[in-house]
Amino acid sequence: MTQGSGGTILQKADQLASFSAMENGLTRAYLTPEHKQAHQQLADWMTEAGLEVWQDSVGNQWGRKLASNPTQPTLVIGSHSDTVVNAGKYDGNLGILLGLEALRQLQDIELPYHVDLVAFADEEGVRFNTTLIGSSSVAGCFQPAWLDIKDDNNVAMGEAMLDFGLSPELAGQDARSPEEVKAYLEVHIEQGPVLEDANQAVGVVTGIAGAKRFQIAVKGMAGHAGTVPHELRLDALCGVAEMISAIEAYGLKYNVVATVGKCEVKPSAVNVIPGEVNFSLDIRSAVQQDLEQACTELFSQLEAIAHRRELQLSHELTYQAQAVPCDSKLQQQWAEVVEIQTGTPASFLASGAGHDAMVMANITDIGILFVRCEKGISHNPREQVNEHDVGVALECLVEMIKRVSSQDTVSST
Amino acid sequence: MTQGSGGTILQKADQLASFSAMENGLTRAYLTPEHKQAHQQLADWMTEAGLEVWQDSVGNQWGRKLASNPTQPTLVIGSHSDTVVNAGKYDGNLGILLGLEALRQLQDIELPYHVDLVAFADEEGVRFNTTLIGSSSVAGCFQPAWLDIKDDNNVAMGEAMLDFGLSPELAGQDARSPEEVKAYLEVHIEQGPVLEDANQAVGVVTGIAGAKRFQIAVKGMAGHAGTVPHELRLDALCGVAEMISAIEAYGLKYNVVATVGKCEVKPSAVNVIPGEVNFSLDIRSAVQQDLEQACTELFSQLEAIAHRRELQLSHELTYQAQAVPCDSKLQQQWAEVVEIQTGTPASFLASGAGHDAMVMANITDIGILFVRCEKGISHNPREQVNEHDVGVALECLVEMIKRVSSQDTVSST
Repeated sequence: MTQGSGGTILQKADQLASFSAMENGLTRAYLTPEHKQAHQQLADWMTEAGLEVWQDSVGNQWGRKLASNPTQPTLVIGSHSDTVVNAGKYDGNLGILLGLEALRQLQDIELPYHVDLVAFADEEGVRFNTTLIGSSSVAGCFQPAWLDIKDDNNVAMGEAMLDFGLSPELAGQDARSPEEVKAYLEVHIEQGPVLEDANQAVGVVTGIAGAKRFQIAVKGMAGHAGTVPHELRLDALCGVAEMISAIEAYGLKYNVVATVGKCEVKPSAVNVIPGEVNFSLDIRSAVQQDLEQACTELFSQLEAIAHRRELQLSHELTYQAQAVPCDSKLQQQWAEVVEIQTGTPASFLASGAGHDAMVMANITDIGILFVRCEKGISHNPREQVNEHDVGVALECLVEMIKRVSSQDTVSST
Repeated sequence: MTQGSGGTILQKADQLASFSAMENGLTRAYLTPEHKQAHQQLADWMTEAGLEVWQDSVGNQWGRKLASNPTQPTLVIGSHSDTVVNAGKYDGNLGILLGLEALRQLQDIELPYHVDLVAFADEEGVRFNTTLIGSSSVAGCFQPAWLDIKDDNNVAMGEAMLDFGLSPELAGQDARSPEEVKAYLEVHIEQGPVLEDANQAVGVVTGIAGAKRFQIAVKGMAGHAGTVPHELRLDALCGVAEMISAIEAYGLKYNVVATVGKCEVKPSAVNVIPGEVNFSLDIRSAVQQDLEQACTELFSQLEAIAHRRELQLSHELTYQAQAVPCDSKLQQQWAEVVEIQTGTPASFLASGAGHDAMVMANITDIGILFVRCEKGISHNPREQVNEHDVGVALECLVEMIKRVSSQDTVSST
């Protein structure tokens, strides 16, 4: 049955992918006609699954499995329905379709709480260059100023909402209060290679990584590649090479990932000793304290390298986001259902990418399950999941929805 | 007297720098009107110094101190009179003016050989993108095909020769034979920081470095900076960082200089693990065997790093030039005169840059003396030498010209 349900979900993912701005590929931005069509399709499927459906103030599509006499706050499950440009079919959409199938299977089972399935209307931020609009509205973080942001065609978000059939003046007014929400569960493709490497269909997410990004400049002295002996050089690139190695060694040893993605050499000539190098550093950790410590310790190491080599080092923080931990009780419950469904202890992993759950954490506990994706490829038409893994994720989600009732989430935090 | 002579030479360098294509700066390319004017000035000064003057088939300006009854082949001393764009006043020109002043001082001293002072008309290759035309002609290496090379204004070298008053059909016909030349001596600014660092006015050159240049490609796998743990990365830049450190360590330990001047990362995004890096490697040594060994050993190290990291490495040789050693007897004689003039043992150093001497080595023994230049800056208007050092170089050159007669260079090689 599981395999069959996995197949059903993959078929629906194919169908949903047809609502796209491009032929032979998937691009679906917030508040576009194809986005409206996709939500209509989701609403139809939700109705078929016995859910009560509605669209909220910013265009999120909801479906509720009603409890006849709920004694606890509502459990929310979901993910996002918008995509990047030339996207895969599973980023976001898989989580919605898993929730849909889980609630269809649970249709005849009475739970002590409502279960709300939500298709968040904007997570990727492709159209208006501001991300996570859908979950921000639900979590009370919608900012009215966003309504004036214009897309590339000079259409403001407020106008686009009108076109979509929404009332922009109501945007964000229907936020949920913490008291109304029991917890938020999200199933998402991993978008990384960890589960494939560990040979696991699914994995329990420990948290969403915080990140800091820096732009770093190292200055030495340019010189003739033939006439300046090594002892007299102030070679900025040799200094940066040592720094990159130190950064990599730190990442291999501690609970962070640290990436130098850009590295620009000046003057960049075959026969000139590099006088200046500018490089980027992206550091992430699911544990905020580890992230802070990494920054402190790494810059201390970089300063020492620069000082020893008589190079000038300067850096600028260009971006930062706080780490958001997943609720430990929810992690434990996910691990229990994973172990039951797979027969092996659950894998735990951090999420290096952002998700709607990190906004929902403002109002409730969050629990995330990752599904293995082929070679970790995402944001790409080659994004792939397999039917077996989707079936396992479905069974886990069904069990998790039942099991959450045993946890008094609100009072435990 | 020496100090005064140094001052005279610096004044002449200022005067010579006025023959320029640019105002407030020096640019003097081969066969231009300003080049003709500069050679006329040199010819006037040569005549004043008692030399017999002529212009050869490619425009080199010569002046001969005649021996009344020479028993030995001619000693040639010189350097080049053309410059790079926005040049310094001493690169090349200083060597000519030192030779001029030395022969002026030796005017009344009878030597057993003619001494020819030459201002080579093209060393830098700015106008026709082929270097060392002047010395190539003297050394029998002029290629008639060069006459068809056009400059940026579509003027062929042959036409430019006509405009300069030369007969292009004779270009290179007046090459010297090895039997006619006793030795070639050149004094040149160091264009590097070694003598300044060693606190020496002048230094004896051991040879002109051979060079090999490579373009190297390292391929790994691009990935999301947040979702791929370090253990699973194939980060091309981390691999290249380790390679750059290995290259630097080799250069510090062995008799080569090895420079990574260009380093281009793909895809070059803050949040993407580098999938590919292309970098240049320039290796030089005055000892050809050391250069060959460095290439072999370094590529062996780079291959090992790539293999261990599961990266793909490929490389392409883009340029090479053989090392040209300076004659050991001439080195020893330079060292003797330097020690006498400075009171301290001579410094020996390799030349990382090319000079006319390396072409003259095709027909005769070469001996080069370097003069300290400020901060090693050259090919730049800030190029600077001091009067004291120029005076020392002059005394050394005067003594060297006298001393060479004690060496039967031709039969010793």
